[in-house]
Amino acid sequence: MSGEFSGPAGIEEACRRAAAAFDPYRRTPDATRAAFLRATADRLRAAGEELVAAVRAETALTEARARTELDRTVNQLRMFADLLDDPAWASPKRLPALPDRRPAPRPDLRSRSVPIGPVAVFGASNFPLAFSTAGGDTASALAAGCPVVVKSHPAHPRTARLAAGCVLAAAAETGLPEGVFGLVVGEGNEPGERLVADPRIAAVAFTGSRAGGTALTTIANARPVPIPVYAEMSSVNPVFLLPSRLAAGTAEVAAGYVASLTASAGQFCTNPGLLLAVEGPHLDRFRAAVAGLVEKQPAQRMLHAGIAQAYRLGVAELTDLPAVTTLAVGTDPHGVPDACVPVVFQTDAATFHATPRLRDEVFGASGLLVACPAEDDLVELAQELPGQLTATLQAAPGDRDLARRLLPLLERRAGRIIYNGWPTGVEVAGPMVHGGPYPATADGRSTSVGPMAIDRFLRPVCYQGFPDDLAPC
Amino acid sequence: MSGEFSGPAGIEEACRRAAAAFDPYRRTPDATRAAFLRATADRLRAAGEELVAAVRAETALTEARARTELDRTVNQLRMFADLLDDPAWASPKRLPALPDRRPAPRPDLRSRSVPIGPVAVFGASNFPLAFSTAGGDTASALAAGCPVVVKSHPAHPRTARLAAGCVLAAAAETGLPEGVFGLVVGEGNEPGERLVADPRIAAVAFTGSRAGGTALTTIANARPVPIPVYAEMSSVNPVFLLPSRLAAGTAEVAAGYVASLTASAGQFCTNPGLLLAVEGPHLDRFRAAVAGLVEKQPAQRMLHAGIAQAYRLGVAELTDLPAVTTLAVGTDPHGVPDACVPVVFQTDAATFHATPRLRDEVFGASGLLVACPAEDDLVELAQELPGQLTATLQAAPGDRDLARRLLPLLERRAGRIIYNGWPTGVEVAGPMVHGGPYPATADGRSTSVGPMAIDRFLRPVCYQGFPDDLAPC
Repeated sequence: MSGEFSGPAGIEEACRRAAAAFDPYRRTPDATRAAFLRATADRLRAAGEELVAAVRAETALTEARARTELDRTVNQLRMFADLLDDPAWASPKRLPALPDRRPAPRPDLRSRSVPIGPVAVFGASNFPLAFSTAGGDTASALAAGCPVVVKSHPAHPRTARLAAGCVLAAAAETGLPEGVFGLVVGEGNEPGERLVADPRIAAVAFTGSRAGGTALTTIANARPVPIPVYAEMSSVNPVFLLPSRLAAGTAEVAAGYVASLTASAGQFCTNPGLLLAVEGPHLDRFRAAVAGLVEKQPAQRMLHAGIAQAYRLGVAELTDLPAVTTLAVGTDPHGVPDACVPVVFQTDAATFHATPRLRDEVFGASGLLVACPAEDDLVELAQELPGQLTATLQAAPGDRDLARRLLPLLERRAGRIIYNGWPTGVEVAGPMVHGGPYPATADGRSTSVGPMAIDRFLRPVCYQGFPDDLAPC
Repeated sequence: MSGEFSGPAGIEEACRRAAAAFDPYRRTPDATRAAFLRATADRLRAAGEELVAAVRAETALTEARARTELDRTVNQLRMFADLLDDPAWASPKRLPALPDRRPAPRPDLRSRSVPIGPVAVFGASNFPLAFSTAGGDTASALAAGCPVVVKSHPAHPRTARLAAGCVLAAAAETGLPEGVFGLVVGEGNEPGERLVADPRIAAVAFTGSRAGGTALTTIANARPVPIPVYAEMSSVNPVFLLPSRLAAGTAEVAAGYVASLTASAGQFCTNPGLLLAVEGPHLDRFRAAVAGLVEKQPAQRMLHAGIAQAYRLGVAELTDLPAVTTLAVGTDPHGVPDACVPVVFQTDAATFHATPRLRDEVFGASGLLVACPAEDDLVELAQELPGQLTATLQAAPGDRDLARRLLPLLERRAGRIIYNGWPTGVEVAGPMVHGGPYPATADGRSTSVGPMAIDRFLRPVCYQGFPDDLAPC
């Protein structure tokens, strides 16, 4: 496939083409880039069955999940196309000259956002469509006017190639330079590292592990010209289950929690890995309800063997920790390959406080329930949490005062705060923030979901004293 | 003075107070923070004579320049207060729930920008008021809701203390927690490095040398929790003097150039250190006009001895370079202490191309004129320039085609592009961008002048499913 590259020379060529495409591509009318995104969406839709089959073959995700993700991917591309229909996307500003102002005249001033340059996008293992080749990072960068070089995730090369084919065909159909999109394939860390170090790459978007995101950020910072890295890395997505809600809604909350914890074998960045509540008879009932549900949960196949192994190791580590006990484990009667057997651990506030390891993510359907002596401990522990993608309040009207105490603490630590919902299921919409302070992401000022994701690939430029026929805005 | 700190324990205490003040401060109504900024502006105005005297005593800036800078400082504070009068400053967004949507209901979604946390601001040597204690970085961070800890510049401690007194008195008058503002004093790099490394600091704003900005960025990136650094560092602010303009406006352009080059002894970040034009008789006339003006320019006293010494070294280095000649030097009949004697060097395109050193800033009134064989060389050299705060086109209607070729290249390399003006004199206004790709700044996505400067200290938060009485927006 033209547009697919591997090896050092191939990566070099992909970057060279992206750099060559940048100026012509960014100068296309907004309508052209919108047409390109819509054509890509149409082609993904047309290739839908093939894409769903590839996702299922390469990732062990269910057909329903693959179809939902395809819908989302198509919708994201169309959302960014719609965004370009409104010139406000580039934040144009204008202030006319005041030639007679004293002591000095004011020049005519205009500004707008311009694209930052070619973007390296890393395919995510857990979202082979929506956060990979033609996913949200690619869609937002292309909308901004940035050529994209995708590093294909080694776990789903065929899915990546199919999606890349759709983007490349749409680019050709729209009359765009071919370097506007490229796909880099290859095993190991080296191709991605080489891509991030290439002087023609101007920004990086990544969804994956903290180790991976940190490694890429280190490379980006050490370049002669450092570049921004938008790495979405890790989060335990704390849920604060407040007393009145716990008392009134035990069964409902338990069902919602277990469903969110186990959806897609827990392979969501927003998986609720941590739940905090106040000790007492209501919590005992909740524990029993959760245990009853989890013990009936069957094992699910994980994305690939490496992820399943990491899950088993993470679970084993928690199992061996003193003062952490296992509340409930799911079933695996048929020995599912690469299995995620759901598990909920429990501990007390003092142990959680004293064990930093418990604040780290175990990727998969592993939950930790922390029983606190009193409401004040919820507030205390909230202040110990590192940056998160989400934080959730499960609260009833009687919990208002406690919710009011917690809210400002969560606001400082999370990109999204959910009230009486669950963190999985990220709406692609205007106010969405899928981001959060470090280590949830490498850059807590940004979101990787929703229209605000385009801001990651823009920078402002001011034009002073320009005649109208030369001013670009 | 309460609110002034020194030594490791003092810096620790300043950060502790800032962290303690963050939550109460950020939860103040916008009107309270606006009143605080206006009260600070009023107090600076009331202390104006004392401030101007301190600036003059500590920096050798002229009285006119000190007064202009005071006006600007006062106006910046009022501009951010005015910004807070419009709730749009926090970019609030709202999307109502769609409970009946299929296949899944849409939750109610709101978002707004929230302050990032306590900000460390470094006083700049060349702007003792407008980019220092109560300058634009402080004003924008305080407007956002971030407490500020200023590292006082050692070159103007009394000015810093006076300005800090105004901020602290305004904070007390407005009923704000005292930790909302602190001043750290001390010699050498260690206090600033300690401040940036403090875990309670959430962002850094700096205006100064590339070495200084790079050192702080390295510290910030190496923290357990890395933080953004907004360092405005270095720029040669290229001026492209196009052929028709050169032919028609020799005297006017020469006068504008020399005035911009020598203003305030060239101690502006936007000083036009580089001018490129096409060789020929018109350029010979321009050279002669520039030489005539520069040779009459008297030496000016620089901000302090260290800066004057760095200027002398930089000029000596250029003087010694082969294929770089001295076009003109100013006069210094009276032996001004810490003198900046203006100088304009000249070279050819090939030498400029082959000598990366010539792309580096010499802070002060040192200009380099590059004579190019043809228009294409202007275009070639434009592509070799690193990131800049500004780029300027001096052009006549006959230069439109060449201007159109250069504009996209300059747009990729500069935060502000000026048409038939000069880069010095930065308007504080909505569309202003005082920023630019690395190494002009450490973060080319931002501006340190104008209302958009507040964005540096904000991050978005989404609220999902919140009842109205609990939702903060």
